[in-house]
Amino acid sequence: METLEDYCLRVLEHLRVSTEHARLMTDALVTTDSWGVFTHGTKLLSGYARRLLAGGLRTDGQPRVAREGPAWAIVDGQSLPAQVTSIAAMRLAIKKSREVGVAYVGVKNSCHFGAAGYYAWLAAREGLIGMAMANDVPSVAAPGSRQAVIGSNPMAYAIPAGNHDPILLDMSIAAAAGGKVYAKCKRGEPIPPGWLIGPDGQPTTDDSLYPHQSSLAPFGAHKGYGLGLLIDGLSAVLTGAAVTHQVGSWLFDDGTKPTDHGAAFLAIHTDAIMPIARFDARIDKLIDEIHAGPTAAGCERLLVPGEREWAHRRSALEHGLELPGDVVSVLADLAADLDMDFSTSKWSLNPTRTQGDKPPGNRRFNC
Amino acid sequence: METLEDYCLRVLEHLRVSTEHARLMTDALVTTDSWGVFTHGTKLLSGYARRLLAGGLRTDGQPRVAREGPAWAIVDGQSLPAQVTSIAAMRLAIKKSREVGVAYVGVKNSCHFGAAGYYAWLAAREGLIGMAMANDVPSVAAPGSRQAVIGSNPMAYAIPAGNHDPILLDMSIAAAAGGKVYAKCKRGEPIPPGWLIGPDGQPTTDDSLYPHQSSLAPFGAHKGYGLGLLIDGLSAVLTGAAVTHQVGSWLFDDGTKPTDHGAAFLAIHTDAIMPIARFDARIDKLIDEIHAGPTAAGCERLLVPGEREWAHRRSALEHGLELPGDVVSVLADLAADLDMDFSTSKWSLNPTRTQGDKPPGNRRFNC
Repeated sequence: METLEDYCLRVLEHLRVSTEHARLMTDALVTTDSWGVFTHGTKLLSGYARRLLAGGLRTDGQPRVAREGPAWAIVDGQSLPAQVTSIAAMRLAIKKSREVGVAYVGVKNSCHFGAAGYYAWLAAREGLIGMAMANDVPSVAAPGSRQAVIGSNPMAYAIPAGNHDPILLDMSIAAAAGGKVYAKCKRGEPIPPGWLIGPDGQPTTDDSLYPHQSSLAPFGAHKGYGLGLLIDGLSAVLTGAAVTHQVGSWLFDDGTKPTDHGAAFLAIHTDAIMPIARFDARIDKLIDEIHAGPTAAGCERLLVPGEREWAHRRSALEHGLELPGDVVSVLADLAADLDMDFSTSKWSLNPTRTQGDKPPGNRRFNC
Repeated sequence: METLEDYCLRVLEHLRVSTEHARLMTDALVTTDSWGVFTHGTKLLSGYARRLLAGGLRTDGQPRVAREGPAWAIVDGQSLPAQVTSIAAMRLAIKKSREVGVAYVGVKNSCHFGAAGYYAWLAAREGLIGMAMANDVPSVAAPGSRQAVIGSNPMAYAIPAGNHDPILLDMSIAAAAGGKVYAKCKRGEPIPPGWLIGPDGQPTTDDSLYPHQSSLAPFGAHKGYGLGLLIDGLSAVLTGAAVTHQVGSWLFDDGTKPTDHGAAFLAIHTDAIMPIARFDARIDKLIDEIHAGPTAAGCERLLVPGEREWAHRRSALEHGLELPGDVVSVLADLAADLDMDFSTSKWSLNPTRTQGDKPPGNRRFNC
């Protein structure tokens, strides 16, 4: 039976993406689906296909190191699919951090890179602390603004553990993602207060205003907004990528033109700084203590970020992955456009084993 | 007339802090007051005095580099005042980042370090991007918890600009700082919903429960909590400092014992990565665009983080600094305890000029 990875590869090769690049994109997208983060998995293929066919995303060439030093580099993504460039950038950050302890790699001329958590995880599965972030077209309001002034700017981190799965947080600076607002609208459900800012700059729950006459609220007001500016600083201002209003919308703007997103990746070589067995014991102890914390009624156990995702992935590897209806619908439409078959919502995954899939105590499995 | 710096130095020397260390502590505390962040300025002298007199904070010795590599170091704070160690750590991060581009310096055996923003600013006033963070005793709940499981874990960043003041954000992971809750209680004002988690794990506005029967809510629920874990990871797990429940309370625990707080400092040598004139122009453009954003009724202009603080500082340098009543009261009590005089709430400041005080266009003034 064809796995989801095989299918994804087939679609990308049909779109003239090289096998090498298609494998990179596939691993990013299917890993994200396997976490249950379906908004940023294979569903994205449809939008990427439009840009690959129109030429705004290139299928030839390779990411290029534009400038570098011992603990940093700037990678020019050459308008290739952002997963290709982002994986290259994080790999370079990992390599440099193994040499000097810590490394920052910034990216320019990139596009929408999917789930930030995937890149953070690339570092964590090799025993390093990883961080990933990217900028985007403005969709989020600043405190006091009537329009969006900053992107939802995702950021993620991953910290490897010993007996536990890595801590893995992937978030945007919006109080709620635009996709969640759309989903509520589609299902006719009310928009919770605190999600949207109306055209007068005041909070609104009127879903008819989204997205053209409203913007997303930043989480934690000035704090989320302030984090967004840091992300733009490291992903775009410092890398040479487009900043806020200059970024192209990967979904809505002309598919023939590059979007020039930026991104930034950080890797910290944990083992250089503290012997790995000691670090493992210390991070495990922190996680154990949180698990032992007293819970409110209805909460079985306190979690650290990522636990739901690793449980979802283990289940998907064992029992197969059921794609939700909206993803199936998007993939079926894409298949029809490309004159390809798409027949099932239930997929098996390639039986790779990565650190997040590991049995307890068997850590730092490099795949 | 004696300046606030002179007075602060006199208090610290009275407490047997060496002149060298007293100068470092004074610059951190008075700069913070000058920003209008009075919760983390000279008011802290009282709590520090208790520990200096009891011996939990040492007055002899120097911070020691325990281990280091090209892009990182771990500094042992030797239970010295945390400002002394934190300034040494950020200076080391700045030095290393000038050599290799990016550097991380972690700190152990430290204490409450005051305002994180001060250390980020040390990097920014030399033209670098700076970040600072620290852990603390648990005061913040995780989603679903009935008790605090993590510290309020401050973090700050500063990004230097060209014609504009540096962007400077200093925040904690709590929805509202404990000090704000106390202030509301003291003034008999209602606690806004979303600030406190009661002993049943549910949100509460009952101020009588704070702090012994309630904890602070994390800002943005799982997002603030997740950032808090990252801060504990970089400040404490990786540095060898005490983690969460093992940290001593600098205010409430035995003053004779070290608290073993951790901290982490990051510096990015902007000028190595992008020519400084280009970076300046790009960050200024971002700030200009935000300033030009359309505002809601009652909001005169959109701000970037730090603008209020720089305006406060310029005014304080020019017209003097008026300490608020709670700070005056704490400092007067301390003076009485130490048999020193304390006569005024209105102080002049030493006429230092730093980047944040600069006239537009005159940037990277190193003081």
